[in-house]
Parts: sequence; structure tokens; C-alpha cells
Amino acid sequence: MADEPKPDPAGIATGLSVDAQSPSGTFVTSAPAELSADDQKDPDKVKAYTDAKKAFDEYTAQAKLEPLAVKLSDSVGHNRVSINFVWTLITGFLVMFMQAGFALVETGLCRAKNAGHTMSMNFMIYPLGMLGFYLCGFAFMFGGLGPIGTMGGYAGLNKELGFHIGDKFIGLLGWKGFLLQGAGYDSAAFALFLFQMVFMDTTATIPTGGAAERWKFSAFMIYGACIGTIMYPLFGNWVWGGGWLATLGSNFGIGHGHVDFAGSSVVHMQGGVIALIFAWLIGPRYGKYNKEGKIVHPIVPHSIPMAMLGTFILAFGWFGFNPGSTLAGTDLRIAVVAVNTMLASATGALAATLWMWWVRTKKPDPSMMCNGMLAGLVAITAPCAFVSAGGASILGAVAGIIVVESVFFFDKIGIDDPVGAISVHGVNGAWGCLSLGLFADGTYGEGWNGVSGTVRGLFYGGGMNQFWAELIGVSACFVTLTILSLIVYYIAEVLAGGNRVSLDVEIEGLDVPEMGIPGYSGMMLDKDAETPHVGQRH
Amino acid sequence: MADEPKPDPAGIATGLSVDAQSPSGTFVTSAPAELSADDQKDPDKVKAYTDAKKAFDEYTAQAKLEPLAVKLSDSVGHNRVSINFVWTLITGFLVMFMQAGFALVETGLCRAKNAGHTMSMNFMIYPLGMLGFYLCGFAFMFGGLGPIGTMGGYAGLNKELGFHIGDKFIGLLGWKGFLLQGAGYDSAAFALFLFQMVFMDTTATIPTGGAAERWKFSAFMIYGACIGTIMYPLFGNWVWGGGWLATLGSNFGIGHGHVDFAGSSVVHMQGGVIALIFAWLIGPRYGKYNKEGKIVHPIVPHSIPMAMLGTFILAFGWFGFNPGSTLAGTDLRIAVVAVNTMLASATGALAATLWMWWVRTKKPDPSMMCNGMLAGLVAITAPCAFVSAGGASILGAVAGIIVVESVFFFDKIGIDDPVGAISVHGVNGAWGCLSLGLFADGTYGEGWNGVSGTVRGLFYGGGMNQFWAELIGVSACFVTLTILSLIVYYIAEVLAGGNRVSLDVEIEGLDVPEMGIPGYSGMMLDKDAETPHVGQRH
Amino acid sequence: MADEPKPDPAGIATGLSVDAQSPSGTFVTSAPAELSADDQKDPDKVKAYTDAKKAFDEYTAQAKLEPLAVKLSDSVGHNRVSINFVWTLITGFLVMFMQAGFALVETGLCRAKNAGHTMSMNFMIYPLGMLGFYLCGFAFMFGGLGPIGTMGGYAGLNKELGFHIGDKFIGLLGWKGFLLQGAGYDSAAFALFLFQMVFMDTTATIPTGGAAERWKFSAFMIYGACIGTIMYPLFGNWVWGGGWLATLGSNFGIGHGHVDFAGSSVVHMQGGVIALIFAWLIGPRYGKYNKEGKIVHPIVPHSIPMAMLGTFILAFGWFGFNPGSTLAGTDLRIAVVAVNTMLASATGALAATLWMWWVRTKKPDPSMMCNGMLAGLVAITAPCAFVSAGGASILGAVAGIIVVESVFFFDKIGIDDPVGAISVHGVNGAWGCLSLGLFADGTYGEGWNGVSGTVRGLFYGGGMNQFWAELIGVSACFVTLTILSLIVYYIAEVLAGGNRVSLDVEIEGLDVPEMGIPGYSGMMLDKDAETPHVGQRH
Repeated sequence: MADEPKPDPAGIATGLSVDAQSPSGTFVTSAPAELSADDQKDPDKVKAYTDAKKAFDEYTAQAKLEPLAVKLSDSVGHNRVSINFVWTLITGFLVMFMQAGFALVETGLCRAKNAGHTMSMNFMIYPLGMLGFYLCGFAFMFGGLGPIGTMGGYAGLNKELGFHIGDKFIGLLGWKGFLLQGAGYDSAAFALFLFQMVFMDTTATIPTGGAAERWKFSAFMIYGACIGTIMYPLFGNWVWGGGWLATLGSNFGIGHGHVDFAGSSVVHMQGGVIALIFAWLIGPRYGKYNKEGKIVHPIVPHSIPMAMLGTFILAFGWFGFNPGSTLAGTDLRIAVVAVNTMLASATGALAATLWMWWVRTKKPDPSMMCNGMLAGLVAITAPCAFVSAGGASILGAVAGIIVVESVFFFDKIGIDDPVGAISVHGVNGAWGCLSLGLFADGTYGEGWNGVSGTVRGLFYGGGMNQFWAELIGVSACFVTLTILSLIVYYIAEVLAGGNRVSLDVEIEGLDVPEMGIPGYSGMMLDKDAETPHVGQRH
Repeated sequence: MADEPKPDPAGIATGLSVDAQSPSGTFVTSAPAELSADDQKDPDKVKAYTDAKKAFDEYTAQAKLEPLAVKLSDSVGHNRVSINFVWTLITGFLVMFMQAGFALVETGLCRAKNAGHTMSMNFMIYPLGMLGFYLCGFAFMFGGLGPIGTMGGYAGLNKELGFHIGDKFIGLLGWKGFLLQGAGYDSAAFALFLFQMVFMDTTATIPTGGAAERWKFSAFMIYGACIGTIMYPLFGNWVWGGGWLATLGSNFGIGHGHVDFAGSSVVHMQGGVIALIFAWLIGPRYGKYNKEGKIVHPIVPHSIPMAMLGTFILAFGWFGFNPGSTLAGTDLRIAVVAVNTMLASATGALAATLWMWWVRTKKPDPSMMCNGMLAGLVAITAPCAFVSAGGASILGAVAGIIVVESVFFFDKIGIDDPVGAISVHGVNGAWGCLSLGLFADGTYGEGWNGVSGTVRGLFYGGGMNQFWAELIGVSACFVTLTILSLIVYYIAEVLAGGNRVSLDVEIEGLDVPEMGIPGYSGMMLDKDAETPHVGQRH
Repeated sequence: MADEPKPDPAGIATGLSVDAQSPSGTFVTSAPAELSADDQKDPDKVKAYTDAKKAFDEYTAQAKLEPLAVKLSDSVGHNRVSINFVWTLITGFLVMFMQAGFALVETGLCRAKNAGHTMSMNFMIYPLGMLGFYLCGFAFMFGGLGPIGTMGGYAGLNKELGFHIGDKFIGLLGWKGFLLQGAGYDSAAFALFLFQMVFMDTTATIPTGGAAERWKFSAFMIYGACIGTIMYPLFGNWVWGGGWLATLGSNFGIGHGHVDFAGSSVVHMQGGVIALIFAWLIGPRYGKYNKEGKIVHPIVPHSIPMAMLGTFILAFGWFGFNPGSTLAGTDLRIAVVAVNTMLASATGALAATLWMWWVRTKKPDPSMMCNGMLAGLVAITAPCAFVSAGGASILGAVAGIIVVESVFFFDKIGIDDPVGAISVHGVNGAWGCLSLGLFADGTYGEGWNGVSGTVRGLFYGGGMNQFWAELIGVSACFVTLTILSLIVYYIAEVLAGGNRVSLDVEIEGLDVPEMGIPGYSGMMLDKDAETPHVGQRH
């Protein structure tokens, strides 16, 4: 194409005069587009054109009188774009560190005899998922994104596959930026890749918890090859890449479309649904249930310090996750996003703790403290930019109660999720999106997804419209990921000769048989205490 | 009030022309305030007014000739404020991560049988403290702060309670920003909240070390509800919120008032004094002392790797703590602050190690390596911006020796502080403030606390004035927190039916009785080796 | 000297009009230097002078018409410099956190009975190395650097010792900035110190892995005193401080000189060579080899979770290491650097895992997952800014295979490196530099080391020139550090009465004899399983 945007791999020409922006508007006044013959008959359009033309002429005339100011505006624009690059990259680094948090939470909540295996899954998913996203996932998800506005406006990722209903475009999949070559070899595109890759890898590592302590490493590797390539990017494109859920509002008037600021559905619920399907299909761990499906041997975490360190790392990384999702350090709403994130994590942790202590087990259970905090974080992820501190606190507290009840529920119906991944990420991912439709207070989100006005939920006079958009997104997430998970599970079943290790391996612990060496060596473990032989088999 | 500053929750109108500042001054020249009838009789004031008026008129005239430059200055100001937001938030995130560091240091230095309990206290203090600070602590501490200068100058937090002595205002408590509503719902106020909340939570988590291995979880929770609401914010307001210690200089000519750049007194000494009172009242751990008060069974850390990882995390987070306290990435002193912080941590660690090795136990004790580094960090926290690299190195080394001797001292007098919290945070917090009065070299701090001139200590020709201001602050901290700690301890004593667990629970380990599950499971622990039954009871 | 640059300790005068830069150039047009009598006879030089003079006169005339724009440019320049300070400091903080990563990787890969000792070495090297670098190492390495361009251009570090060959200056050692006093007490110099100190400490902590589990703590301390003072800064000056390897290109036309963007040779290979010499001289651990030099008892890691957490921390910190090495957040290539770093870590980890699984041991070995990721990271460190995503992926994969084979090789020849430090940092440090000479794609590096044109390697049409420059640097690194290591090893041998602990201590574990307390207490360890008595002695 003749006028394809030119990639700028060195970032030298990124950030110019047009990026000099402030609360009072952009520095540069651009020339209006010429009117078509039809438009020239519309007096309103003619008036708008004339006004814009006059402003442009005035700017042009004044610019000749102030060449130094114009020259300086290039520096100002470059500074602005640099601030946004720095913000996006550093917050992205924080999100990457969440991989360590997940690894520790999951390993800490599992048994010592499986520590090496659980840790290794959480470790390998990072490179595996990344390389799939690099190969094609990024292109599928963001290949049709359009201009990367906050980072200089590079518009080379401009090919979205889809179809038309009347004059409305229904986007389904991006198709540019494969292997970060060609149009993808641009500094802004790379910054976007980094930030989005670590989001994908967050999703990717969630199911390793749901299927932990019995998942064959080779089967896990096959899943790992699928998550970054196609499982994650599809729904991701629909919400964040310009696909049909993003345009529900502009196309069909349903709120601002499915709004998910930082990924309650895109990241967490996707991971939670996969965890649900995998935990369900792979079956519960040996020894936990008897033949009648009653829990006879609750399996306790092998290291609370490890799980809590992991939770702190996650809460730390979430300050990258949510505030970073502006992709702009110059969007000062970042402070509100960060505080909301913090508050929801606090009310989630406190609510879950007190709910356990006062209502459920009569003890302030440490593992539920962790899951309560994570539940609050997952829930605030979608609405973090749109709600007040009070809204964040309330929806976080609700998340803390939901997660406790959900954990007990899945335990009861025999879906054995060693770390609570389904409840934390799946159930509260859904709750987070829905809560946006209730608590969005109308102070932010002007023009979101191309719909004028701010984002406003039911409790702030916005009606049910935004709630429906959220519900549609959540439903689409559930259905799509269920299907994809089933497919990938059975692919792994065939290619790896089953997803589950043998019973002998499970009883011994997966570390030595699967990974070759124990997770802990030189420390005396007490394996029998961990899994009594109750004579039950699945 | 008619002209209350308007909060800007979306941050859209924050950062404008007036924020365009540089070494050569502000871009905008403001109109001078009109002179009163009295002032018009003072020829100096008339001259100053005339000059300022002339500068303003010239600026106004020139601004008409350079409308684009004026417009551009909005973008420049917004960039500047954005840099400061980004800096404040990211450094605040680093400080939040210190919660994990404290959790690991304290848990690592305690025994394996209490690992879950110690970790859980450090975990829950984060949400508990936060919610109290959100409820009212922030309003108490910063409700009368005045303009948030580096982040756009929002001035909505403008109500300080206090009284007058003559024409001097003595501030005691802020009274605005409760629940971050109303005047509090502003992006700059939220950024300030985030940064200050994580500081408060640092204080909050210190006493969990001093009272570790015997503190009832319910009693701890009551303390947790008090720390963020009122224990921390009171003294905090006096030093950082515009209260009487900050105005000691402008009101009474005592140096620059009590100067504490990043919290040697506000954060660390407050925590250390609480730890002292609680460790003293709750009594030593069973088995450590015999009936005559002699140490018969030194209790060793259960995990040096855990304690050292925690120390590294703290040293890492301190780069948020100290340099972030400028609240401005555009204050380039941040580099000096960061390096001073680093150097004091190094000399503290090295001095403590060599002091132990050559003078005390003849071994390079790993737990004292940690406490030495932390002591250096605590000490440099107040003076970090005001001293040279040499000053930082010396005062850090002194801190390293102080901490060793202080640990031995408190051990000797029977105040059992399992992690050294009193010595690290209390004693060295005081030393840090006092050292500012000695080592401040006069290169920074122009106009600090409204007092003209830079901050200068005894060794750099500043006389004793600043030292007295530091001493007054340190004394006020000790007295105030002693009283508050006594009150809160006895409130918990009543509400929780005692602060201390039963002896049986203490011997078994607090994990299962208090938290419901063990901290470690599937690993064989050696509890007897940890606490021999020496027949001693408190 | 009369016209020595004036240090700016408060950073108040740093960042001015001249720093206002953008893709379209600098804002200020400076006056050209007057021509000498000789130059005035050269018509080209006269023409260039006349043009530059005209541009300067036009700028000067226009500046009089736009005083506000000129004034504003100060703010713009200060913003730019502030962005660079913020970037350099925060990425430096991330690098500092890598100390924790190294500590965990090394301790996790060692045995439980040596956990306290291994951890303590990794802990103490941080302050020890730092203080040596502060004392003289920084002055040796950067004392002749010249202007710190991205941070305001402070030029006080301007004394490089060396000699001339004809008119070519051969730099050998810097000589300014000792103790950060005098010319060193400047905010930009402090920022540079911070960033470079944490790099030095990365090197410093590498050999503690190679000589782990048998190194006397006192001997280690002597090494620690040498690394930051002189071992690291010498080669460092040659590559990054303006020394002879940096000027290989401008002096002798060999590529762009030895190019090492973030330290494959300066940081990693230096550490790896020291590790090699020390591991070789100190001899293998007792029990691993029999008298014939065959491995009879492979020693396995005591904690895979610890090693993997450490690796994640390192991978996280590397986002400071590589992108931070621009010293500029306004150089938007940072996004490419970050993504390349990430991709090479992924292909390294995956390649090493699959190579072990399919070729070597038939198991996806967790410790080799870690070393594979680290190998990819080490290799990409030199070329990260100069290669494409594809190049990064390929060279990272090669690193993953190299590290496996290298570990087996050193094991076979009887050089016992408990953590793989030699293979990860030494061998792949060399590979990283060489790969730059192959994969540099010519999109970046214009004017690097004073050589015009971008950096281009063999595979992108750049010929062998850059490869030779890399090979010369790598060879110089190997020779220089081998000599320095031998000297330091024998100094420690004499001063500490040997580098190696006694056999009794080694069998018992170094923790209690060397450090006074065990690394783990209250947990039952299984020391016999860790080191069977095979009757072999060295």
C-alpha cells in the first residue's frame, strides 16, 4: 500500500508537535478535511468546515510569527510521548513480575511433594505463552487496532478481519504484526507488545493452579503452546483490539460497548474459565474425596509464607496492571485507578477473613486472606478507572465474600481447584465486569469505545445499558473459552497420551517422576501426612 | 464556601501553564496582590508592588504577541505534573512492596511453628491499616495540608484544627478528605493518599515484629484498626501535615522546624516506640529467660534466606521511600537522595557485621547483617536529602553499631523483641533525626517549612538550632506514641480478653490454634529444639 | 582549573534550554566556534562556518521576538532531563533488586546445610562491592567519561589517564569523582553512580555462585573488597568509560569499537571469568567426584521454588538492566530493547528445556529451565538495542543450548560450579558480544562511540568489522580478568589463611561454623543424603 504508515524501529521520529497536548487541547490546529459535494449542501457541515478552516488559517498565520514556539512544540510532544512510554514499560515490567507471584501462590498452596512441578509449570508458561503471542497472538489480537494514540499515534496495525451487517463492521480477528516484523517493527508497537504480552501471560498461568498436582508436564506444555497463540487473543481482540464487543456501543447503542479497563474478563475470567474446564475434566486429586464424593481429607497448603509472599507480589504487580492500562502517564486518572485498586484489595482481604472467621470456619484462615485480596483485585480490574473510592471498597468487599462461598461451592460439587483459581479469577472476573455496570460514577471515560459521554452505571443514574454490555461480554467470554478449553484439553489428551499423571506418580509426588529432581532436597518431607491412602480412585 | 478549590477526579484540568517551571523560574508571571491602605504607606512594599506589576504587564503584553507559546506552556506544565505523578506513584508502589519485605524479615527471624501467624499479621496489617487511613487517618494527617505543589497545586485539603498563640497558629489535626469524598475526590489528592498510605502501613507493620510469637490474632486486629485511624496520623500531622512541629521554625525560629525528609521519626520511630511498649507489656517469649531474667535459650531465626530476601526487598523498596518523598521527579536532588540511601545501607550492614565479628560474638552473624542494613536505612531516612555521600556513609555506619548494642541492651533488660524492631526502627529512627541536625550540609532545603535558607547542621556551620528542632520532634514522638500505645494495648487487652496467647498455644506454636492451619505442612519441623521446656513461666 | 564545570548537587541548574530536544533537533541554535587562521583558508570550513553563523544569527534575532518561547524552552529541557533521571533511577532500582534474585538462585541451587552461608555471601557483596566502588571504583571507571549527555550534560568527570599513539589517545583509567566529592558531588553524577554501582554489584555477586559451599567467609570478604575497587572498573573503563576498547572504532576503524550495550562482557563475562578461575583454583566440592575425577554423586538443588523465584526476580530486574542502559526515557528504542530482552529470555529457557528433555537427560530439568532463561538474558544484554525481535529470539535460543552443553562440559573437566555461573555468565557473556557482531540490523546506534553510521553485523551486510571489535573485547576481558582473579585469589589465600574451609566444616555444612547459626532452624534437614561420605578427598 502506498500510504501505509512508516514504522519507526528506533523511535526517532515518534513523538512530535502533534503530540503536544494538554488540558487546554492540542497545540497544533490541523486543516479540516475538504467537504464532499453532498456535504457542501448541508449548512451545518459547511459552518463547521468554515470555522475549522478559519482556526487553521489563524494557526498557520500565527505559526509563521512564532517559529520557535512551533519548533519547541516538537520537544514538548516528544516529552509527552516519552512519559507515556516510560509509564507503559515500567508498569508492564511490574505486571511481568506477577508471574513470580502466581508461581509462589500456587506452589505455596500445593503440597511440598509437588513443589518443583507446580513451580516449573508457572515458570515455563512465561516463555511458552510469550513465544506464541510473538508468533501470531499479538497479530490476532491487535493487528487491527488502529493508531496507538498515547504513544505517538503509529497506525500500522490496521488490518482487522470481520464482516459487515449493513454499514456496521463486526470485527473478529486482527491480522498484522506477525513476529513483530514489517509493520510490527516499530517502537510504539513494541511497547504495546510488551504490555499486552505480560497481560496474556497472566491469563496463561491461571489454569496451572486449577489443574495443579496432577497435570502431566507434557500435556501442560501443549496447553502452553495454545494459550498465547489463539486461546487468549480471540476474545481479547473482541474487547481490546477493536472487535465486536468493543463496538457494541457505537454499532448497536449498548452502553459504551463491553468496557473492561484492565482485564477482569479479558485476563482473569478467561483464565478462570480455562481453569474450570481443566479442573473439571482432569478430576479431583487422589485422596481428597471418598467414593461418595465427600471430602474426607482436606489438603492444606505446604507453605503459608510462600503463598503470602506471592500474594504481596501480585498486589504489587497489580499497580502495574491497572494504572498501566491507561498506556499513558499523562492521563492523571492513574492516581484514582491506583487507589481504587488498593482499596478493593483491602476490603476483599478483610471481608474474606471476617467471613471465614465469623461465618464459616471460625478461624482467620491465611489462605483465604490471600484469596480474598486477590478476589478484590480481580474484581476492581475492570471498573478501576470508572468508580469512586467508595464504589471500589464496596465491590471489593463483595468480591471477598463471593470468593469464600465460591471456593466452598466448587469443593462441594467435586471440582477440585487446589488454589481457588476458578473462584478468584473466573467468578470474580465476571463480578468485576458486572460491577462496572453498577458502580461507574460518570467521572471518567468520555468517548470510550467511540461513544460520547462518560461511562455511568446503574447506581449513578446510568440505567441498565452499561450493565447489559458487561453481561454480554461476560457471557461471550464464558462460552468462547469453554469451547476453546474443551478443544485444547482433548488435543493435549491425544498428543500427550492423557492430561493426568498415573496414580503412582500422584501419590509419590510429581516432582521426581515428571521433572527428574525433587522440589526440595535435604529437607525431610512428610508425604504420608499429605496424602493418606484412603483407597479411593477416580 | 464559594471559592473552594474544585476537585478534579479525572485529572483533566490538573497541570497547566502555571506548572511550567524550570531552573530559570516559572513561565507565567502572575499579577501581584493589590496593596492595602497601610501597605501603600510603606515605600519598600510600594516599590516591590510596582516592580511586580511592571513584570506582569510586560508578560501580559508579550503573551499577546506569542499566543502559541502561551498555549504550549499548558502542555509543558501538564508534562511536568505528569512526571511528578508518575514518580510519586511508582515510588509509592515500591514502598507498598516493602510490606512483603517486612513480612519475610519478621517471619524468617521467628520460629517455624509460628511462621503462619507471623506472616498473617504482616499480611493483614496492610488492608487493616489502609482502611483506617482511608476512613479518617488521611483526613486527620493531611486534611489541612494546603496546596499539593508538585502535582498541580490542588488546594482542597485546607482545614487544619488547632489554636493560636498570639498570631502564631499551632496546628494539631487535619479535618478534610474523609473517605476520599468531596474535596478528597481529586486526582492529586488520590496520588498523595497512595504515597502516604503506604508510609503509614510501614509503621503499622513494625510492631508485629516486637510482639511476635505470642500476640493473640484478635488483639492484633484491634491494634490494626487503631494504627491507621489515629495512632499514626496524629504525630504525622504535626510533622508533615502542617502541624506544630513543622512550624517550629517559622513560628519560633527553631531551625527549619522538625525536618524529617522521609520518615525516620514519622514512620520508623513511631513504629519502634509502639513495638517497645507492646514488647514490654506483653512480656518475653516462654523459654528464652530463666526465672532470674537471664537468657538461657537464645531463640534463633528459622530461615536466614527468608530474612535476607526480606531485607533485600526492604532495601529495594527504600528507593521508593526516600527518593519518592520529593513527590517530584522534576526535583533532581532525587539522585543524591537515592545514592545516600544506598550508601547508608551499606555502611550500616558492614559496620554491624564487623562489630559482631570483631567485638561481640566473633561470627559475622547473618541476622545482624540484616538489621545493620535496615538500621542504616532507617537512620538515613530523615537526612537523606540534606547530607553528602560522606555524611550518609558515616551516619549509616554509626547506625550499624548502634543497632547491635541496642539489641544486646534490650535483650539484657528483658524486653524480648524477636526481630529487633525496637532497635532498628525506634532507636535508629531517633538517631536518624538527630544526625540530620549534625550532618545537613547546606546544599538543599531552601525555604523548607517556610524558613528561608537551606538546611544546615552543626558539623557544617549551622549551629545547634536544627539539632534542637530534631530533638524536640524525637521527644514528642516518644511521649505521644508511648501514651497512645498504652491506651491501645489496654483497649485490646479488654476487647480481646488479653493480648497474649496461652502458654500451651505458645509452646505448640500459634499457627494451628490461632490461624487454623500450620504455616508449613508436609515438612518435618523440630519444635522441641526450638523451645525447650525450661520450666519458666511469666 | 578556571573553567571546570560547576557541580550542581541540588540539581537546580540541571536541565535547561539546551536540553530541549526532539526528533526535529535541538531548540537552541548555538554559535559556531570561530575558525582558526588555518581553517580560514579551507573554503569548505568557511562555508560551514558561514552557514552555521547565519543559522545562529537568525535564531538570535527570532529569539528576541519570542522571549516567552525561549523562556519556556528551559522548562521543556528540564522536563526532558527529568524524564531521563526518573528512567535511569527507576531502572537502576530494578537492577539493584537483582541482588535478591542472585541470592535466591544461588542459594536454591546449593544445599540446605549451606543456605545461610551462600545467602550471606550474596547479601554482603552488595554493601562491600558498593563501598569499594564509592571509594575509588567509580572514579577509575567513569572519571574520564566526559559529558553525561542525557542527564543535562554535566562534564565534570573529565580526567582519563592513558597515553598517545601518534595523535590517538589510548584511555586506560579514569581519575575523578573519588568518594563522590568535589567534581563528583553533582546530581547527574550521582544518578550515573547509582546506575553503574548496581551493575558492578551484579558482576560482584556472580563468583559467589562458582565458589559456593566451600568458600571461607573471610576470604570471600577480601574478594569483596577488591571487586568494586579495581577488578570491575578497569575493563569497565575500557568499554564504557572512554577507554581503548570504546575507541577501537574511532581510533583504528574497527567497527564502532567494542560495543556492549548493557554489559554482556562488562558485567556478565567479567563475573563469569572470575567464577571460572575461583571455581578452578578452589577445587570441586567434597563427595561429588571420585578419585578418578568421575562424578559419583550429583549434588541436587535444595529448593527449586527458591531458585525459580530468584530467576523471575532476575528476569524482572533485567528490564532495568537493558532498557535502562539508554540512561534516557526519551530514547524510545527502550521499547525494542525491552521486548528483545524478553524474547531472548524465552527462547533461552525453552531451548534449554527442550535440549535437556529431548537430547540430554530426558527430563525437563527445572534448574536448567532457570539457567536457560538466564543464558538468554546474558546473551541479549550486549546486542539488545541493535537487533530485531527475530535476531533476539535466535541468539537467545542458541544461548539456551550453549548453557546446557557448557554446564556438562565444565562438570566433565572437573571444574565444579554449583550454580552454573561460568556457563551462564562467562560463556554466554562472550556469545552475547559476538552475536552483536552477527545480528546487529543497522536500525540503531548512529554515531555510537563516535563512529558515524549505525551498528551493523555480518548477517545484515555489515561485514566482519564489528565482529572483530567484539572478539577483541571478549579476548581482553578473558585475559584481564584471569590475571586479576589469580592475583586476588592468592591475596585472599594469604590474608585469610586459605580460601577453602576445612573438610570437616564442608561436610557439616558451612552455616554454623562460618556464620554462627544455621540457615534453617526448626526444620529437619537430611544432611547425609546431601553429601554421602565417599571417602574421596582433594
